Formats: sequence, structure tokens, C-alpha cells
Amino acid sequence: MDKIIRFTISLPEALLDGLDKKVTEQGYASRSEFIRDLIREKMIKDEWEGGYDEVIGVLTIIYTHHQNDLVQKITEVQHDANVHIMCNTHVHINHENCLETVMLKGMADDIVSFSQKISALKGVKFAKLVKAAVPIS
Amino acid sequence: MDKIIRFTISLPEALLDGLDKKVTEQGYASRSEFIRDLIREKMIKDEWEGGYDEVIGVLTIIYTHHQNDLVQKITEVQHDANVHIMCNTHVHINHENCLETVMLKGMADDIVSFSQKISALKGVKFAKLVKAAVPIS
Amino acid sequence: MDKIIRFTISLPEALLDGLDKKVTEQGYASRSEFIRDLIREKMIKDEWEGGYDEVIGVLTIIYTHHQNDLVQKITEVQHDANVHIMCNTHVHINHENCLETVMLKGMADDIVSFSQKISALKGVKFAKLVKAAVPIS
Amino acid sequence: MDKIIRFTISLPEALLDGLDKKVTEQGYASRSEFIRDLIREKMIKDEWEGGYDEVIGVLTIIYTHHQNDLVQKITEVQHDANVHIMCNTHVHINHENCLETVMLKGMADDIVSFSQKISALKGVKFAKLVKAAVPIS
Repeated sequence: MDKIIRFTISLPEALLDGLDKKVTEQGYASRSEFIRDLIREKMIKDEWEGGYDEVIGVLTIIYTHHQNDLVQKITEVQHDANVHIMCNTHVHINHENCLETVMLKGMADDIVSFSQKISALKGVKFAKLVKAAVPIS
Repeated sequence: MDKIIRFTISLPEALLDGLDKKVTEQGYASRSEFIRDLIREKMIKDEWEGGYDEVIGVLTIIYTHHQNDLVQKITEVQHDANVHIMCNTHVHINHENCLETVMLKGMADDIVSFSQKISALKGVKFAKLVKAAVPIS
Repeated sequence: MDKIIRFTISLPEALLDGLDKKVTEQGYASRSEFIRDLIREKMIKDEWEGGYDEVIGVLTIIYTHHQNDLVQKITEVQHDANVHIMCNTHVHINHENCLETVMLKGMADDIVSFSQKISALKGVKFAKLVKAAVPIS
Repeated sequence: MDKIIRFTISLPEALLDGLDKKVTEQGYASRSEFIRDLIREKMIKDEWEGGYDEVIGVLTIIYTHHQNDLVQKITEVQHDANVHIMCNTHVHINHENCLETVMLKGMADDIVSFSQKISALKGVKFAKLVKAAVPIS
């Protein structure tokens, strides 16, 4: 496990009160834990904008399996992709539609372009990419 | 399959040119297909804001399995939740961290509050909720 | 000015290194200043989702002044609105289009519905609402 | 004014019903008008991601004028900026805080970096950038 460093910060009193309210309301164990999550989130956002390192993406799609050849085409796009596909998960949400997540690793641009290709396929009705990254700690 | 209706819309020429460029660039099969995706996306966004119907959510989390009891706590939150959990998927992204997606069905508020509870657990380093819905067509 | 409180937080070393890099890169004066901004941003986001207090919105629109009666209609929507309009600013971005910001104060729902009405007017080509709030400190 | 082109698109019946409901609810004059707004919004989003053309940004900030030299520093950042500042608007939201919008024109990257510099100044408590563009039609 990583070494833990303690240090002091200063906040205006009203802001600290607000922080403590959030920590309690949202069920965080401590101020530190809450602030860690804020910092991590900011870092991941910047990492995607910078585009220098490998990042992680999760693509959520909803599509109709009644569409001819769609499953075939999704598979082809996946095989041609310049990204590492870690895992696919698939559930049936009603008689016509499937919900699927695709977990991806690669460069930000490649993950975005992969997601656009999937999203453009006829029969894919919804597509949204979550931009994540391996946490530095 | 749903009945398909044809109708006429009008666009300024320059906007239509821009549309056609998008359709080609992003690999859509037709203008109709592109416009359908825009309409569906707008509807899902509004459905989440309205909060009247059951919607679908996909929660992506990254957490350390070295954190004591975390897996236990995630399971407990899931069992107490006022949402239907359709499926969990789990991959190991390095020796310390796990990437997991949780597919959810329920009321928008309940899905948001479930996601906040998971996100606040000590050891959960990243959490992002994708707001989706069963497509009306 | 508000009383300033000092307190200690703990971060894993790698996360602290990452934080320090951000602080330097983005030109912040101190870690405290950076963390304050993260906390404030999170609070404002939650305030809009909660919907209990008066908030601040800034609506940016782009519209064509060649559209018949549009300026008249924008003014009417503003006069009927259940929100306090603090200020309008208007610049001409080319011979046809105007860029305008509308600064608003009121309940979150009312600001959203006001923005939707403006956005739907024929000739309004772009509309985006920034969700802000009076900072607690 | 731009030449208007009419063309036919096809939608599944349920999706068309949904579209018509949106058009009515949100007070749009016609389906065409609604679809035009969706296309324009998508284009502007892509234009900012592409980064090839001049775009428009509106930066909203909230800051305390009690902070020493802040107004001076904001002015300096503006004078050194590699972007065209079209207009500043300023209102007092309470005895301590000011709300300001800055309308900008320039390359996407320069507008983002300008906004980050302003956002990092001590005393600037909130900063959010709206990404817009001159509509192609």
C-alpha cells in the first residue's frame, strides 16, 4: 500500500461547515476521503483532456438485436479496433433491446473514435462513454 | 418491429451540408439514422430530469480490493437498495484496483442515491453514472 | 471576511504528488486554494440537484436578429418569467447573429424552464445554461 | 438569408410520437426547428473537440472583490491572452461577490487555457466555460 502523508490546509469557516455537511450526508468516512475523491476525479478529467497516457473507458450501448447483422458488425468493429477490449457484458432489457457495456483500455483518442464507430451503427440507439483511468493511488 | 413513418423537414442549406458531412464522417448509414440518435439522446436526458418513469443506469466504479470489507460493504449497499440490479461485471485492472460496472433499473432518484452511497465507500476511488433508458423505439 | 480554519488531511503519497503537479501546472497559489475550488464546485452541483435554495444561472444564447419578432418574444418571455433577471449583455458576432448572456437568480426549476422557453423560440440557434450559486464562502 | 432545403426522413412511429410531444411541451414552432437545434448543438460540440476553427466561448466567473489585486490580475490575464475578448459584464450578487461573464473568440485550446488561468486566481470561486460557435446557419 501507498505511504500516507498528512498535511494542513485552510478553509474559510463557512466552506468547512459546508464540507462537513456533505461528508455526513453522503456517508463519507472522513474529510480526507471526500477530498481524495474530488482530487482523483479532477485528475482523470485532465488526463483525458491531455491525451498523453493510456486511459480506461467504459462504453454503454443500447441496441436492438432485431437489426440485421448488428451483432456481427459490433464484433467486427471490436476486432479492428486500436484499443484493448477487456470485457463485454450484455443484458436483455426487453424483448427487443439489449444493454451492453464494453470495458476499454487505450489512448483517449482511440477510445473516442472506437465509441463513435459503434454509436453510428444502424440499430445502436444509445451510446455513452465513461472516461476513467487507473487511479494513481 | 415498429411502423416507420416518413415526413419532410426543412433545413437551411448550409446546415444540411454540415449534417451530411457529419453523417459521412461518423459513418452513419443515413441522415434519418443520425437524427434518430439525436432525438433519442435528447429524450433520455429529459426523462432523467423529469423523474416520472423508470429509467436505466450504469454505474462504473474503480476500487481497491485491499480495502478491508469493501467488497462486503458494496454487496450490502446493493442488497438494501431500492433499485433493481440487473448485472455486475468485474475486471482486474492492476494488482490493486478493480473496475466494475453495475447495471441498474429504477426511479432516477433512487439510482442517483444508490450511486452516491457506493461512491462514498472508503476505497472506491472513482464512480460515474451513465443515465440511460429503455428506448421508446 | 470569513474566519479561516486550518486542519489536517491525509493523502496517499502518489495522490499528493499528483495534486502538487496540478497546483503548479494550473497556476494555483496553494493546495488549499485548489481544494477550495473543488469543494465549491461540488457544492454548487449538489445545490442545483437538490433544488431547495435560490441559485444563479447564466444563459448564453446565439440568435439571428433577422427572425421576425424574435427580440420582441425574448423580451416577453423575460417579463413573464418567474425568475429575477439581473442583467442582459448583447454582442454582434457577425452580420446575422447575436450572442447574448442573461444572468438569472431564482429556484433551479424556474431557471431551467425559463431557459427552455428561450431556447425553443424560432431563430434561437444555440442555448446553454451555466449553473452557478452564491458561494457560501 | 440562407436557402431552405426540404427533404424526407423516416422515424419509427413511437419515436415520432415522442418527438411531437417534445416539440409541443418545449414550445417549438415545428419539428424542423427542434431538429435544427439538435443538429447545431451536435456540430458545436464536435467543432470544439476537433479544434480546427475559431470558436466562441463564454466564461462565467464568481469572485470576491475583497481579494487584494484580483481585479488587477484578471485584467492582466485578459491583456496577455491569445484570444479576442469581445465583452465583459459584471454584476454584484452580494456585498462580497461579483458575477462576471467574459465573451471570447479564438481557437478552442487558447480559450480553454485562458479560462484555466482566470479560474486559478486566488479569490475566483467559480468558473465555467460555455463552448459555443458562430452557427453555420
